[in-house]
Amino acid sequence: MDIVEQLTRALPAGTVITDPVALDACRTDRSGHLSCGRPLALVEARSIEDVQEVCRIATATNTPVVSRGAGTGLAGGGIAGTGEIVLSTLHMNRILEVSTANQLAVVEPGIINGEMNRALFEHGMWWAPDPASKDIATVGGNIAMNAGGLLCAKYGVTREAVLALKVVLADGRLISVGHRTVKGVTGYDLCALMIGSEGTLGVIVEATLKLRPLVTGNVATIAAYLDSVETGASIAARISAAGLQPAIMELLDRRSLECLDAYTGGSLLSRGNAYLLIQCDGAAAEAEAAAMLAIIREAGAQAETTTDPVLADEWVHVRRQVFPSLEAQGTLLVEDVAVPREQMPAMFAKLAQLEEKYGISIPSSAHAGDGNLHPCFIFQGEDVPQMIWDAAGEMFAHALELGGTLTGEHGIGVLKKRWLGDELGDVQLMLQRQIKAVFDPAGLLNPGKVLDPLVQGAPAVC
Amino acid sequence: MDIVEQLTRALPAGTVITDPVALDACRTDRSGHLSCGRPLALVEARSIEDVQEVCRIATATNTPVVSRGAGTGLAGGGIAGTGEIVLSTLHMNRILEVSTANQLAVVEPGIINGEMNRALFEHGMWWAPDPASKDIATVGGNIAMNAGGLLCAKYGVTREAVLALKVVLADGRLISVGHRTVKGVTGYDLCALMIGSEGTLGVIVEATLKLRPLVTGNVATIAAYLDSVETGASIAARISAAGLQPAIMELLDRRSLECLDAYTGGSLLSRGNAYLLIQCDGAAAEAEAAAMLAIIREAGAQAETTTDPVLADEWVHVRRQVFPSLEAQGTLLVEDVAVPREQMPAMFAKLAQLEEKYGISIPSSAHAGDGNLHPCFIFQGEDVPQMIWDAAGEMFAHALELGGTLTGEHGIGVLKKRWLGDELGDVQLMLQRQIKAVFDPAGLLNPGKVLDPLVQGAPAVC
Repeated sequence: MDIVEQLTRALPAGTVITDPVALDACRTDRSGHLSCGRPLALVEARSIEDVQEVCRIATATNTPVVSRGAGTGLAGGGIAGTGEIVLSTLHMNRILEVSTANQLAVVEPGIINGEMNRALFEHGMWWAPDPASKDIATVGGNIAMNAGGLLCAKYGVTREAVLALKVVLADGRLISVGHRTVKGVTGYDLCALMIGSEGTLGVIVEATLKLRPLVTGNVATIAAYLDSVETGASIAARISAAGLQPAIMELLDRRSLECLDAYTGGSLLSRGNAYLLIQCDGAAAEAEAAAMLAIIREAGAQAETTTDPVLADEWVHVRRQVFPSLEAQGTLLVEDVAVPREQMPAMFAKLAQLEEKYGISIPSSAHAGDGNLHPCFIFQGEDVPQMIWDAAGEMFAHALELGGTLTGEHGIGVLKKRWLGDELGDVQLMLQRQIKAVFDPAGLLNPGKVLDPLVQGAPAVC
Repeated sequence: MDIVEQLTRALPAGTVITDPVALDACRTDRSGHLSCGRPLALVEARSIEDVQEVCRIATATNTPVVSRGAGTGLAGGGIAGTGEIVLSTLHMNRILEVSTANQLAVVEPGIINGEMNRALFEHGMWWAPDPASKDIATVGGNIAMNAGGLLCAKYGVTREAVLALKVVLADGRLISVGHRTVKGVTGYDLCALMIGSEGTLGVIVEATLKLRPLVTGNVATIAAYLDSVETGASIAARISAAGLQPAIMELLDRRSLECLDAYTGGSLLSRGNAYLLIQCDGAAAEAEAAAMLAIIREAGAQAETTTDPVLADEWVHVRRQVFPSLEAQGTLLVEDVAVPREQMPAMFAKLAQLEEKYGISIPSSAHAGDGNLHPCFIFQGEDVPQMIWDAAGEMFAHALELGGTLTGEHGIGVLKKRWLGDELGDVQLMLQRQIKAVFDPAGLLNPGKVLDPLVQGAPAVC
């Protein structure tokens, strides 16, 4: 009996999809990278038992499994190829519990971050992880990636916002990791290990999320136009160094403003060569914004501030339009290096050098509160040209030299796998591969992603 | 050549200690638990190279290594016995870097938490982990335990306050895990895995700590005397449920007040049967304290509030004297269960049942903001009587039933090892043992602690 037939017999009717259009959609994600061929089947799991059944059949038949949420990844971590089962948890999307007393929610992995947060709002709570994709990305995907976003310097990354997980192992066994409590130190922190593991250690089937009470009070927003992105990066670093903690601090370079003007017909460039957007929230929002404004003006720059939500939305909208405006120019490779905050000016200077050396344009934005840059390489056609990868490789090397990392929030997936060893070193890379083998000895879970399994038991991956 | 001779030849003069008094001091920690015999040698490492040399010799000679900071653990995690090398990092106690711009410090593991925080104060920064032992415990020990403390509900546990670690593996190789940046998602989070691993996966030799700017503004303190600890637990849970976030929320039961009165000659009991201490900090401190006071008064209880630091210190002093007052009654087994906040009244009710069933007194305090209770079992003599372990075992089982954990912040060590599988389950326990084997295949690092290694390569542990 072939694998698809086994799946179809074992799982509820309608769960196993073999429609070519649906299968082909699983060959790619938001990175645009395409796998080499069509996967075997798409299983739309409705329950933990469904997931366990898929993993049991996969193990019995030595078939690779690619678990997948909404497919919004930017590193090809959730794309599936020839011979693989796509295990979608998108339809496991219920909120199972919300507890204001315990400040937690228990959810299935397929719920969309933004939808969940709208439901939590009714309870006076929110979940802090806010990747730019939050209105289309699943909570399970956020966890599998350790998603970041705009609010991380103040409110932490996904790892800090997950208390516990239920995880199905490659062989179908179910484990519960982490704690329902704020504290808990029983054994190794497998919950943290699972967060950011990109579907290579297990399938996340339930999450207990750490919630926060809604932040009250006015939000104070600052918009500053600056003479250069280096000035902006330096102001941002000075704001952090002064102990001021914005909720959001976003920086756009001249290239981004050019693309925005081309896209909207506006004239941002007439105001400056870089744009710094800051939002402060909480009880001290207005006082903090005033202190930040003083730092900006000390640097000789002009800035406006408001607590009017309508005007603030206009200023935030400038930031939100960056990616659509870049996509209008061609195919995008959105990169994701992060550096210590004070190294942001050096990182922007390196990008300018790379632009000159390679004769390309690299419009870049940054979550300037945490040193996470998104340099965007634009090209025509589907495949990333080698010259772009060469430039990206130089950028990665420089980020590492500055004490930074290849990827702040997008993950390794397939696209950054070749550089992972440069950051981790051979010893740690081998430890990571051995940990992979502990959870997935046959190498069936998301093979070819992040790192090479010790045992290449599964069919070769494209 | 015997092991001590090898160590002495390989390491700088004065580093290898064989003085029996010094060795015997390493047989115990603050739990009072005593190992079966005297360790081989104490190595007072001064450098990463010293640590690597010890691990190389240990691996070559198949000798167990117990790494140790200040010996303030409460679960016997850092105690050493016959045939073992004690590897102390207490003398590796320098601050290597403080960066306000990057909000981080790089330190050696032996620095005392309180001393480091006094140095960071000069830079306008602080490190949030604040175990009660902070004036005598090392930062390395805090990390090895994932230490908690009083401030965790608002400011997080140690795991959230460590960016990166340098770790020496059992065979002497050095790895760097984590990131110097706020965000970073390259591979599995081995930094989080190392935090709380109790010296069983590697030796922490350097830490990059995530700092916070000093909190400004008044601190508002509330002291409330209540009719019962259940009322206190219920008020605390209501405060959390209202979305109010105290920095500190401590609860003492009637038994604790009895011990305090006996110790100080005071009359706390005349004021109530339980004591709730709350501190609010930050810009909204006074407004939050007012809202909490309203909740306390709605519950029919009396409370006072102050922003006067001298009066506040008096109220906090009551809490600080609890452990000395209990120690005056006999030998202490300080337990450490944690439960979801709203289950605190149920946990206190269970403790009252256990007191009755076993005819014992279990004075208990709680970090009521995060549901972490410290029930204290008092007995005479050195060894914990079986009857006390029976009562503790029932308590652990009940904490698990309530969705809680064996240990919120003290760790497993030797004292709670027999219950670890009850919480983790067999499948996860085996995964944890396999992870141990990845890092330490010969089972040389802190054998007999937390979990049993897969391979019992090292001499039997006492």
